[in-house]
Amino acid sequence: MRVYDLVIVGGGPAGMSAALYAVRQNLKFVMLAEQVGGLANLVPNLKAYLGYQYITGFDLIGRFKEHLSKYKVPVKDEKAIGVSKRGQVFSVKTAGRVYRSKSVIIATGRRFKKLGIPGEAKFSSKGVSDCTICDGPLFRNKTVAVIGGGRTGLFATLFLLEIARKIYLVEKNGKLKTEGGMKKVAEAVTGSRKVRVLTGTSVKEIRGNSFVRSLMLRKDGKNLALPVDGVFVEVGYVPNTEFVKGLARFNERGEIVVDAECRTSVPGLFAAGDVTQLKEKQVVVSVGEGAKAALSAVLYLEEIQKRGR
Amino acid sequence: MRVYDLVIVGGGPAGMSAALYAVRQNLKFVMLAEQVGGLANLVPNLKAYLGYQYITGFDLIGRFKEHLSKYKVPVKDEKAIGVSKRGQVFSVKTAGRVYRSKSVIIATGRRFKKLGIPGEAKFSSKGVSDCTICDGPLFRNKTVAVIGGGRTGLFATLFLLEIARKIYLVEKNGKLKTEGGMKKVAEAVTGSRKVRVLTGTSVKEIRGNSFVRSLMLRKDGKNLALPVDGVFVEVGYVPNTEFVKGLARFNERGEIVVDAECRTSVPGLFAAGDVTQLKEKQVVVSVGEGAKAALSAVLYLEEIQKRGR
Repeated sequence: MRVYDLVIVGGGPAGMSAALYAVRQNLKFVMLAEQVGGLANLVPNLKAYLGYQYITGFDLIGRFKEHLSKYKVPVKDEKAIGVSKRGQVFSVKTAGRVYRSKSVIIATGRRFKKLGIPGEAKFSSKGVSDCTICDGPLFRNKTVAVIGGGRTGLFATLFLLEIARKIYLVEKNGKLKTEGGMKKVAEAVTGSRKVRVLTGTSVKEIRGNSFVRSLMLRKDGKNLALPVDGVFVEVGYVPNTEFVKGLARFNERGEIVVDAECRTSVPGLFAAGDVTQLKEKQVVVSVGEGAKAALSAVLYLEEIQKRGR
Repeated sequence: MRVYDLVIVGGGPAGMSAALYAVRQNLKFVMLAEQVGGLANLVPNLKAYLGYQYITGFDLIGRFKEHLSKYKVPVKDEKAIGVSKRGQVFSVKTAGRVYRSKSVIIATGRRFKKLGIPGEAKFSSKGVSDCTICDGPLFRNKTVAVIGGGRTGLFATLFLLEIARKIYLVEKNGKLKTEGGMKKVAEAVTGSRKVRVLTGTSVKEIRGNSFVRSLMLRKDGKNLALPVDGVFVEVGYVPNTEFVKGLARFNERGEIVVDAECRTSVPGLFAAGDVTQLKEKQVVVSVGEGAKAALSAVLYLEEIQKRGR
């Protein structure tokens, strides 16, 4: 059975950058990616990827794909469902097969967190969304609620300001997020006459007929029905790390802990990008981390080869 | 006296990326940079900055400058000669003045290492160079020596293959570097009939009249005069960290040790790019690290503000 030098799990900016370095280093590798580009595809505008003054996430990912297309990058449209290590060899399991490899880079990023309340799944794509850039335009001049007053919710609200007629911003804690450089965004949001902020308010249920009609809220011990046309669930993210649990060290948020060279607690296992504990979830950071992870893997492969002699 | 939020020391890719994040976060900051772009300006070709398929370092830095020019980035053409911290406040000293700041990012990169032998300084720019892309074209169809068989020397030789008639590659150790993904490059160099590799050979002196004429070598206990038209000193780099010695933790190479979030051992002092212990000296890595350092500084500033209340 073939043993690869490297399996890259994930095809977002970190995985793509790792693949670019891996292919240029002539590694025997595969990249497992159900969706090349990942969540970065959904970023409405990127202004801090140095060298590109202003570009949408979708267009930047297009440039990345074009760049990779100049090389033979073996991309498999498969989802990893488990990773284990036995001796020096990793096994990366997908629905259809097992990839054996001397090293692995986890670059699976993160996904939108769910509320887990009645109606959320039922009305998904029927008024409930987690993607403002995908579904925001459907709510032109409508009334929407954004659930979550953290970074994700604030940026979602900012994006919807241009579109919706009225936005209820619902936050279960006592205040909107202002830390982590969010003060300016929070001010822009609260400064708009379109926005009504409901803090200390939790969402109990999403109701409707064929489409969303209202939100059931709870504030100060009282229930409240809020008529809305749409609901954006923007309560943050969870890292896509379930398939690798039990192998490497995680932090309390379920993110993989890496050192400055993208090494995890397991020799030969590297991680890069939004899936790691790094607070800076930025495309440009992920691209740098992906490059580091691939070059760290090269050093690791050379080391085990030397020891094996 | 004004106290800045942040002083960025250095204007290479890491410093530029940090400045982009700092200006977008509305920090009160300055960037001290004698030469914007730094050594990246001298990279003949970059193929691994994701999004740009093939670009010279000089052109990529041009894009970076253009990007930054869209914002008001306060660049000072000054060299930092000392950094100290007293209480919560850093002092960054230049020849002309002192900048006081709550946080500092060191992004001063590295410089070419010197041999420290007779003739090296005397014939500098008279046949002795450390920059193949700057001075290589002056040696078309000439005989040159490249001193150093490590990463720097191998890439320099590769670049000169297209230009020089004959290249002596002089390495003091017993073999050329093949680790760190250099095997392919080493093979390309040794496979060329233009190249003669002299391992186990040290350089004692550079001789000439108005211009370089020969190298005095020592191999196997014997002296040897090697007639050459030019000498490229490519024995690696030293980090530009002298001005910050005694403040933060360094490794044995004199590089600043950072964690995954670009924090040094001193609260409020961050470092990014080639000046750090990271093995991956790559433009794309430096850009990611610069962004991380700036965002880490933002978190730090918020934290000290909160504590100060």
